[in-house]
Amino acid sequence: MSSPSKAGRPRSADLDRALLVATQDLLAEVGYDRLSIETVAARCGAGKATVYRRWAGKSELVADAVAQLHGEYPEPDTGTLRGDLLLMSSIWLDPDSRRDAVVAGLLTAMAHDAGLREAVRVAVSEPHQAIFAAIVGRAVARGEVPAGRDLEMIGSVFPAVTFHHLTVLAAPVGKELVERIIDGVLMPALTWHEPTTRG
Amino acid sequence: MSSPSKAGRPRSADLDRALLVATQDLLAEVGYDRLSIETVAARCGAGKATVYRRWAGKSELVADAVAQLHGEYPEPDTGTLRGDLLLMSSIWLDPDSRRDAVVAGLLTAMAHDAGLREAVRVAVSEPHQAIFAAIVGRAVARGEVPAGRDLEMIGSVFPAVTFHHLTVLAAPVGKELVERIIDGVLMPALTWHEPTTRG
Repeated sequence: MSSPSKAGRPRSADLDRALLVATQDLLAEVGYDRLSIETVAARCGAGKATVYRRWAGKSELVADAVAQLHGEYPEPDTGTLRGDLLLMSSIWLDPDSRRDAVVAGLLTAMAHDAGLREAVRVAVSEPHQAIFAAIVGRAVARGEVPAGRDLEMIGSVFPAVTFHHLTVLAAPVGKELVERIIDGVLMPALTWHEPTTRG
Repeated sequence: MSSPSKAGRPRSADLDRALLVATQDLLAEVGYDRLSIETVAARCGAGKATVYRRWAGKSELVADAVAQLHGEYPEPDTGTLRGDLLLMSSIWLDPDSRRDAVVAGLLTAMAHDAGLREAVRVAVSEPHQAIFAAIVGRAVARGEVPAGRDLEMIGSVFPAVTFHHLTVLAAPVGKELVERIIDGVLMPALTWHEPTTRG
């Protein structure tokens, strides 16, 4: 029960990884509320006790599986704002990334579970916001973007609209959608110059 | 079992309404996957059989409860685009509207259930898009908005960002957030004039 975990055994690490991948799969397939530890274990040929030796419960297991989503992010520096935004978006188009489907499986549970929100924030939201801030920072330095834009708000548009498509519309996130977000919303919001004061 | 429903009996209509409100409450409290028909019935002092006489199952009950969210939408016509967008947003700030919490309770299930998506589309998404299109149509006629904007994309920003706050950030949708969406994203995306062609 309360035995200390023995880190570093290769077989154990392989099983850990397999259990986390199975958890990601089930989050994408049925979502958090319908995911059972028994099913996760069964997919790896293990029993529930094996999972409970490693994680205190479902919430901790899922948080760890979400943490694994923090993959290789490209560090875009193409020389133009639009080029950088397109490259930034390429991670969302990667067919090997199940980030979007996994997070969609968490959305309802996240509203009630601060631990899940924290896991998604660290693994998904913060890396996105950091890259967005770096891209726009260079665009400001180049004079492409005036200072004083609401970057936190504008930076939330891309993840917000893609998740909206995945859930409310159940529409896939493809190259066309990404270009519509960039050209229809992000570029104008970032680069516009107001000609006159509005009342 | 297959008895025809008797419409028009006041007591029955009252119970129908109570069951739908209880369903909305539970969607907001625990989400779709953890909502049980037994709990809905118990909150109204009824049994499961009472619910099953009215709805074929959970999916149909929830779709009906979502349909009831289609409340009174203001028809904004203040004379300016910004004024109309602010008035449009007031429905999201109505503390009596549980639309946002109810839909948050559906997001994960919606990804896998076309019936739920259809219910949300008809009760929430389409009324929003219709009002947005009317507002922008008048702004185009007044010369505030150039023709050719991607109105479907820009119109999805408001619901997308508000749901993003409710789930990923678990932040409330208040007046400040609404003004940041309108001034930081919607107004520039709708009204900007590109000075030069971009490569």
